Amino acid sequence: MTVSEDPAAGLGERLHQLVGQLAAAPVRSITGDGVRATLDIVAKALAEGWPAPAEIPFEIHEVPSGTPVLDWTVPKEWNVRAAYLVGPDGSRFADVADHPLHLLGYSVPTRTRLGLDELRPHLFSMPDRPDWIPYRTSYWNENWGFCLTDRALRALPDGEYEVVVDTTLTDGSLTYAEIVLPATEPAPGGGEPDEFLVTTHTCHPATANDNGSGIAVLTELARHLAALPSRRHTFRLLFIPGTIGSITWLARNRDMVGRIRHGLVLTGLGDRGGLTYKRSRRGDATVDRAAAVALAESGQEHRLVDFSPYGYDERQFCSPGFDLPVGRLGRGQHGEYPQYHTSADDLSFVTPESLAGSFAALTRIIEICDANAFWRNTSPYGEPQLGRRGLYRAIGATMNRQAVEMGLLWVLNLTDGTRDLLDIGARADIPFDSVLAAVDALAGVGLLAREAGPEGTP
Amino acid sequence: MTVSEDPAAGLGERLHQLVGQLAAAPVRSITGDGVRATLDIVAKALAEGWPAPAEIPFEIHEVPSGTPVLDWTVPKEWNVRAAYLVGPDGSRFADVADHPLHLLGYSVPTRTRLGLDELRPHLFSMPDRPDWIPYRTSYWNENWGFCLTDRALRALPDGEYEVVVDTTLTDGSLTYAEIVLPATEPAPGGGEPDEFLVTTHTCHPATANDNGSGIAVLTELARHLAALPSRRHTFRLLFIPGTIGSITWLARNRDMVGRIRHGLVLTGLGDRGGLTYKRSRRGDATVDRAAAVALAESGQEHRLVDFSPYGYDERQFCSPGFDLPVGRLGRGQHGEYPQYHTSADDLSFVTPESLAGSFAALTRIIEICDANAFWRNTSPYGEPQLGRRGLYRAIGATMNRQAVEMGLLWVLNLTDGTRDLLDIGARADIPFDSVLAAVDALAGVGLLAREAGPEGTP
Amino acid sequence: MTVSEDPAAGLGERLHQLVGQLAAAPVRSITGDGVRATLDIVAKALAEGWPAPAEIPFEIHEVPSGTPVLDWTVPKEWNVRAAYLVGPDGSRFADVADHPLHLLGYSVPTRTRLGLDELRPHLFSMPDRPDWIPYRTSYWNENWGFCLTDRALRALPDGEYEVVVDTTLTDGSLTYAEIVLPATEPAPGGGEPDEFLVTTHTCHPATANDNGSGIAVLTELARHLAALPSRRHTFRLLFIPGTIGSITWLARNRDMVGRIRHGLVLTGLGDRGGLTYKRSRRGDATVDRAAAVALAESGQEHRLVDFSPYGYDERQFCSPGFDLPVGRLGRGQHGEYPQYHTSADDLSFVTPESLAGSFAALTRIIEICDANAFWRNTSPYGEPQLGRRGLYRAIGATMNRQAVEMGLLWVLNLTDGTRDLLDIGARADIPFDSVLAAVDALAGVGLLAREAGPEGTP
Repeated sequence: MTVSEDPAAGLGERLHQLVGQLAAAPVRSITGDGVRATLDIVAKALAEGWPAPAEIPFEIHEVPSGTPVLDWTVPKEWNVRAAYLVGPDGSRFADVADHPLHLLGYSVPTRTRLGLDELRPHLFSMPDRPDWIPYRTSYWNENWGFCLTDRALRALPDGEYEVVVDTTLTDGSLTYAEIVLPATEPAPGGGEPDEFLVTTHTCHPATANDNGSGIAVLTELARHLAALPSRRHTFRLLFIPGTIGSITWLARNRDMVGRIRHGLVLTGLGDRGGLTYKRSRRGDATVDRAAAVALAESGQEHRLVDFSPYGYDERQFCSPGFDLPVGRLGRGQHGEYPQYHTSADDLSFVTPESLAGSFAALTRIIEICDANAFWRNTSPYGEPQLGRRGLYRAIGATMNRQAVEMGLLWVLNLTDGTRDLLDIGARADIPFDSVLAAVDALAGVGLLAREAGPEGTP
Repeated sequence: MTVSEDPAAGLGERLHQLVGQLAAAPVRSITGDGVRATLDIVAKALAEGWPAPAEIPFEIHEVPSGTPVLDWTVPKEWNVRAAYLVGPDGSRFADVADHPLHLLGYSVPTRTRLGLDELRPHLFSMPDRPDWIPYRTSYWNENWGFCLTDRALRALPDGEYEVVVDTTLTDGSLTYAEIVLPATEPAPGGGEPDEFLVTTHTCHPATANDNGSGIAVLTELARHLAALPSRRHTFRLLFIPGTIGSITWLARNRDMVGRIRHGLVLTGLGDRGGLTYKRSRRGDATVDRAAAVALAESGQEHRLVDFSPYGYDERQFCSPGFDLPVGRLGRGQHGEYPQYHTSADDLSFVTPESLAGSFAALTRIIEICDANAFWRNTSPYGEPQLGRRGLYRAIGATMNRQAVEMGLLWVLNLTDGTRDLLDIGARADIPFDSVLAAVDALAGVGLLAREAGPEGTP
Repeated sequence: MTVSEDPAAGLGERLHQLVGQLAAAPVRSITGDGVRATLDIVAKALAEGWPAPAEIPFEIHEVPSGTPVLDWTVPKEWNVRAAYLVGPDGSRFADVADHPLHLLGYSVPTRTRLGLDELRPHLFSMPDRPDWIPYRTSYWNENWGFCLTDRALRALPDGEYEVVVDTTLTDGSLTYAEIVLPATEPAPGGGEPDEFLVTTHTCHPATANDNGSGIAVLTELARHLAALPSRRHTFRLLFIPGTIGSITWLARNRDMVGRIRHGLVLTGLGDRGGLTYKRSRRGDATVDRAAAVALAESGQEHRLVDFSPYGYDERQFCSPGFDLPVGRLGRGQHGEYPQYHTSADDLSFVTPESLAGSFAALTRIIEICDANAFWRNTSPYGEPQLGRRGLYRAIGATMNRQAVEMGLLWVLNLTDGTRDLLDIGARADIPFDSVLAAVDALAGVGLLAREAGPEGTP
């Protein structure tokens, strides 16, 4: 690349290519070799990307089938060798080798012969979208089936079909990957540093926005965070199957979830819709307030939506027993776009620009959470004399109030132990970076001291 | 009646007929035989109505004149034998036998002869409504007087009048009735069950909306509640004279008012105006939130108004020392319609439809208060697996999110001990019945447990 | 004056004349004889005004240079004998004898000769307002300079100039004045009475609105308060130089600031803009709520603005360590009108009507704070019987609800120890005077008792 090349454009293209690789991977589900192949793609991207990344600890976890996890049990492992229908004339239909969505997820091994009418209850299509293949699964209810375009379904000739579902559903394990990037600064009060959790789900086959985009952006985030000169938080990045993956991880990490100070679930980051941030169940967690600032200042179309107990893995992190401060970042929401959970969620549905814009918003949210803190004015009685500390104009000018001076005054006035920097920016109605600049200047002359917040946060 | 007959229409007619009987009763005031006659009508309606009621304990209380009640004293008992004016030509005017409103309420016994000019300070009319008789009283200031149409007043011939106020104002008693329908379930924490208080005033003569409508609807409510298979609350229904009646009842029941968990004052339920719910002084009591839901889902025109210390007996129940969670249900408010406190508030002013609609809203408010409760998710870490409990779709469908599933997820997410079911419905923005259906389903599989709220409520 | 003369008009004229005297005083700054001369004008006005004032204790304080005050140090005292430029042709420019603003405030003694180009960094003008002289100071950074109209600056001939800054900057003192008018009633709970602080800054030379208006109005306020028959609060009025004055006063009175229950900073009260009340940092202090009522009922154009840490001495009183309930009353705000801090802020810029209107609002705010209190209903169980106490209509009328009755009922209902009178007026949506009238009537018959509020206030 040349110096004149736009790095953001490069980022978008790189993310888009990775989404393409992920979409082209073998059948993926909540367990099995498809997940492992997906994590291999991630590992390769982590190791070979541009710019050259630091060494990133990418740990694969295998949790045996039958392991009790919270209210659930890790299911049997599912793998697919082949799956298709053979029609009366011997031609193949709905061959999973042609498209990973043709096979109902977690279809049990089956080899039988059925007339078309007996077969129909096992066939799924979208009559209102006759050229799309729907994405269906049956994880917890043993079943088998095929998904195909409605046009193909209607064209199936009468007669007897050979059903070939050459899958295995056996004791094995659930696979997920975890990257832990430790904080580079000691925790203010000693003890374990606070953690920032970012997760994405790995279980959907083929579909690009949901969730190749999430996997690609989280991979890039790992590279970005690993390259940072310092980190106030420990970052914990999870590539997990949806629902059962977060449940499994929560079950295995129950003792440490109290260290999670901020969290984000990533999904659907590549479509052409505006950015969407879904608040955590708490509604006013630091990450919620940081996301509001980051999206507002992004210049991108965006919206903030309240928590609801539907969606992705935020459902588990925000279940009432955990109630973690975990929001969700994406663009179009599940069910809002017709391509959702269909073959039309393909590589053409995501754009480099959207992926890069999502990545920028994500890193800005993280940056704000990382910078947010409680500080205390060490000279709270009257205003401290800024002039003799070189922080004030020498000659009393009349009109042109400097934003920087206002930042200094606001920060001095509001650092009383009840407000963090996000609160101060909101109350003062000044940009977060202006707050930070004022904090740096004031801390530099000893007028501010860092302290733990009322709840030991952030 | 036949099966095809509309029971609600039958209800409205029955209520309307009862209002007619109450309006035709003898002169009624805050004490005396008029009240007793009114309560006889109620007792008869309780015993003879359709459908056949359970036996309803209808207890009449007589509180002697002179009894101190809070800051007041039970007044002397007032009874009317006759009251009229005899004009210069011997003809009678303003005869209470013709209309109960002709006599100023609590007129002291008087027999005298006065010229028309001397008589005028004792005559009351409505110049702007020349054909209506106003309703006036002088309970606490000894006086006598006559109310008549302004047309009749203007037509009075000059000359000397014989004044006949053949009343008695003597030591006697204040009469009220009380129906107590005990809870059929034990209180969650043991002890006395919570109570639901519903009251209406019995003291206005003749007028139909204010308050024949209240008396009729409360009578019907007694029959309705007595017929219920179960009651979580004890219901206490009061037929009391306005102001002094509620003060008397409060004075005599001071030790038990802490058990009143919900309350409603009923009045003006039959006019053609929209439903009006006036909030309790607390503003967010369960009954206030239940009324908001009931009126919103009623499909009837309605409004919610904040508490003010003017109106009916809610003034006493919501005085700051008691501050009971008692709201008021009605339609047009006092003073909003010109017929208020006049002879034009007659049977034609109320309609069967309005009475039946008010009754429906009333019973729905009660039903919601009765059903509202605190429940706790017994499996709050992650989502419980609904599928293996038969509470979730077998095959993961894409688009059609079921309201029932959302109800389950919302209830599971929000039953953390800080919200009752009304709060949950409001936060989730789903119908109260959907919340209840979800609670039933979840409690049925042990995923919810009933518990007392933070204040031992509801 | 004659009886028919409008006293308010008289007040406005008197204030306007005083502003004129203050604007014509010698050079004023944060220290020095200019301040003393200004306080002399105030003292004279206090002693000679109309109507004849009570004797007012006007105490002058001199605080030595070098005294540590909070984070600051009292500066050297600055005095001016003469200051001007002598041009190449011997004519004088920017002579402080012609206009006090010609000299950069706190210019250090200087006598030198400079070419015009060397001189320019010491010359200040307003290119966009070519006929106005700007007001500039350099209190904390040793410097000297001259302010002149841009027209005059541009006309300066080339050549060498004699610079004459015949000032002294030597150890001396900072001068301020304090008037304490003690409460005439004992504090409800014993101990020191609560205080009401009203301050204005004395340091600006020449300019009329900023701050001749504040000094004049505070002078008049002293006369007004001294003449009151009774005062519930101790009033403490300060005539202080801006910033360093309030810091000095706070440093010397640190032990008593806890007694300050209400406070106001006065400035910019004479321009033609609407009234502006800037809330205290707390935002809902009594003075904030009183100002909202006073301005709303004033009939004058007005606005309420939230606290910000920019402006006048409220910055010091509302610094987080003190966080005093001190708001600011004025009209146009600093920086909002072009005349601000220029020679155009002259006597023609302020009007008698604006000054009188500001004074009326000020005294009304004080009156409301003085009258606001916590009272408790002594008969809170049910409504007390108002009729037998002569507080209720004798004959039950129908329609015309009397505001006075509503006032009685609201006050009885809400005096439960959680709301002061301002809260009650706001909740009941009735005028503050109606609340007061109801309190007077009810307290007169023993139905209300005065009590300390939840924080011992007001």
